[in-house]
Amino acid sequence: MTFDAKKLRYNDQGLLPVIAQDHDSLEVLMLAWMNAEAVERTLETGKVTYWSRSRQSFWIKGETSGHTQKLIDLRYDCDQDCILVLVEQIGAACHTMRRSCFYTAVRDGEEIELMKPEH
Amino acid sequence: MTFDAKKLRYNDQGLLPVIAQDHDSLEVLMLAWMNAEAVERTLETGKVTYWSRSRQSFWIKGETSGHTQKLIDLRYDCDQDCILVLVEQIGAACHTMRRSCFYTAVRDGEEIELMKPEH
Repeated sequence: MTFDAKKLRYNDQGLLPVIAQDHDSLEVLMLAWMNAEAVERTLETGKVTYWSRSRQSFWIKGETSGHTQKLIDLRYDCDQDCILVLVEQIGAACHTMRRSCFYTAVRDGEEIELMKPEH
Repeated sequence: MTFDAKKLRYNDQGLLPVIAQDHDSLEVLMLAWMNAEAVERTLETGKVTYWSRSRQSFWIKGETSGHTQKLIDLRYDCDQDCILVLVEQIGAACHTMRRSCFYTAVRDGEEIELMKPEH
């Protein structure tokens, strides 16, 4: 069946959560948001493009930092309200310069830093 | 530092998105939501416990289906507004009986079913 980005289920702000996963290591890198046009742009360009809620604008990941995400595969879930993108991540995915945004674990009630910033 | 679930950043419904990933295969299984008490219950019991938005109640994953998620590691992201749980998934994570909820890919504009229901 032909895919139509408009048929996905967006929240009342027209957005849905997008999980970015490294296609090679399978590490979960980050979660961000897309609207229907960001989904279309991502599929058309192969450059993962989010909607920045803070800036209220399209956000081609890595456009300023160089830390781009090349789309390898785009999948959506059973409820059609969440997307998973498998990506080729150049450089750090996180703005803190860490590989992944999920660098803090909670173990035995304590916060543990799992990775350091890359340079 | 001691972790406090209340310090995470929840949306205006008191919820944040939670990505569940198989700790062994690293497959992304599903995305659901937790409030602060669900985070606390998950850490205390080791049973991944979401907040069901449709039922407006706590949802111990697998409590009725048997398809439980045993918590292996809980991590949160740089913005403190998203959680990643690494889990030991018993049976199918998806209510369609598929291993993962992300079983539909979009390739060349077409929807492709990547996996079939398990028995």
